[in-house]
Amino acid sequence: MKEQKGTLFVLTGPSGVGKGTLLSHVLPQLDSLFLSVSATTREPRPGEQDGVHYYFLSPEQFRSRIEDGAFLEHAQFSGNYYGTPSAPIDEHLSRGEDVVLEIEVQGAMQIREKRPDAAMIFVAPPDFATLEARLRGRQTEAEDAIALRLETAKHELQQIPKFDYVVINDDLTRAEEELKAVFLAERARTMHRTFHI
Amino acid sequence: MKEQKGTLFVLTGPSGVGKGTLLSHVLPQLDSLFLSVSATTREPRPGEQDGVHYYFLSPEQFRSRIEDGAFLEHAQFSGNYYGTPSAPIDEHLSRGEDVVLEIEVQGAMQIREKRPDAAMIFVAPPDFATLEARLRGRQTEAEDAIALRLETAKHELQQIPKFDYVVINDDLTRAEEELKAVFLAERARTMHRTFHI
Repeated sequence: MKEQKGTLFVLTGPSGVGKGTLLSHVLPQLDSLFLSVSATTREPRPGEQDGVHYYFLSPEQFRSRIEDGAFLEHAQFSGNYYGTPSAPIDEHLSRGEDVVLEIEVQGAMQIREKRPDAAMIFVAPPDFATLEARLRGRQTEAEDAIALRLETAKHELQQIPKFDYVVINDDLTRAEEELKAVFLAERARTMHRTFHI
Repeated sequence: MKEQKGTLFVLTGPSGVGKGTLLSHVLPQLDSLFLSVSATTREPRPGEQDGVHYYFLSPEQFRSRIEDGAFLEHAQFSGNYYGTPSAPIDEHLSRGEDVVLEIEVQGAMQIREKRPDAAMIFVAPPDFATLEARLRGRQTEAEDAIALRLETAKHELQQIPKFDYVVINDDLTRAEEELKAVFLAERARTMHRTFHI
C-alpha cells in the first residue's frame, strides 16, 4: 500500500466559529499534514515571520503574482491583499503529503471550483445564538461590525450543503475528535491509496 | 443540526484479515452504531443465542424469506444458508441510527448494488505474505483449504478500488483508530446532516 498524491483539505467557517483554535489542536496530532501559509500585503505584526505566519509581499509583488496565476484564490480586505500561493501546496501534494488551508468561506468556494478533488470541511456553530455570543464576547468590535459579521455568517451557513463535511463546534474535545477523524478517514479513501499485491 | 437517516456501513475483507477483531474493538467506542445480525440455517453452537449471534431459521423458513425478498444478500456455504435480513437494518436507519455489517467480500458486492449509499470499507492485510502467515497460524485447516482461501483472497483484493475506504490491518491500534475515524467522518458528511438556522 502506497500513498499516492496528497489530499488538499480546505477548512472554513464563519468568523468567530473557532476554526483556528480547532485546527491548532488537531494539527500536532497528525503526521505529514501541512498548514498552508497565506500571502499578504499587510505589514507584519510583532513576532510574525515571513514564510511562517504569512508570506509578506509588496502590493506590486502581489499584483504581479496574480497576473502569473500564482494564487489558488485571493481577495482584498481592509485595503490589503490576501492570497493562497499554489506552488508550496502542490510541492507537498506531489510528495504525497496532505495540506490544509484555513480560509474564509468565499475563498473556500473559489478553491472548490479550481480543485474539485479537495476535501471541503465547514466548521459550524451549534446554533446562530452561540455564534452571536462568541462574536460579542470578543468585545473588540463595534456593534455595526458585529452586525455585518452576523449577516455574512447567515449567508455563509447556507453554503454548507456544498461542502463534504460539516464539523459542529459545540464541544471543543468532540469537535477535535471529529475533525481529526475527517483527516484520517480521507487518507483511508481507496482513491488516495494504491494497493500492490 | 439534526441527524437524518442513519448510515449503512459494510465492512469486509479476506478471511483471516482480522476484520472481526477490529470491529469488536471499535464498536464499544461508538454510540448508536448497531451490528447487523445475520440469519442462518446452521445449528446454533453452545452459547449462541437467537437474535444475538444469529437469527436461526429452518431451511424452509429461510427459502420462504428469500422469496419474500427479505434479505439484502444471501449465500450458501458448506450446505447452510447465510443471509442479511433487511428489516432490522432499515428500522435502525430510519431512526437515524447507523448500522454496520460484517460480511464476506462477495456479499458486500451484492449490497453495494442494492444500497449504493452504503459506506463500503475493505479491511486489507499489509501484504499477501502476512495474510498467508495468519491463515497458516490458525492451524485449524488442511493445506488445500488454506490454498483455496488464499486464491479467493487474491481475487477479493482486486475488488478494493470498488470500495470507499481501505483500512490496512498492519497494527491493530492504528487500524482501530482509522476504522473509528471512518465511522465518525461519515457521520460528519454534510449529506447525512441537516443544518437548521
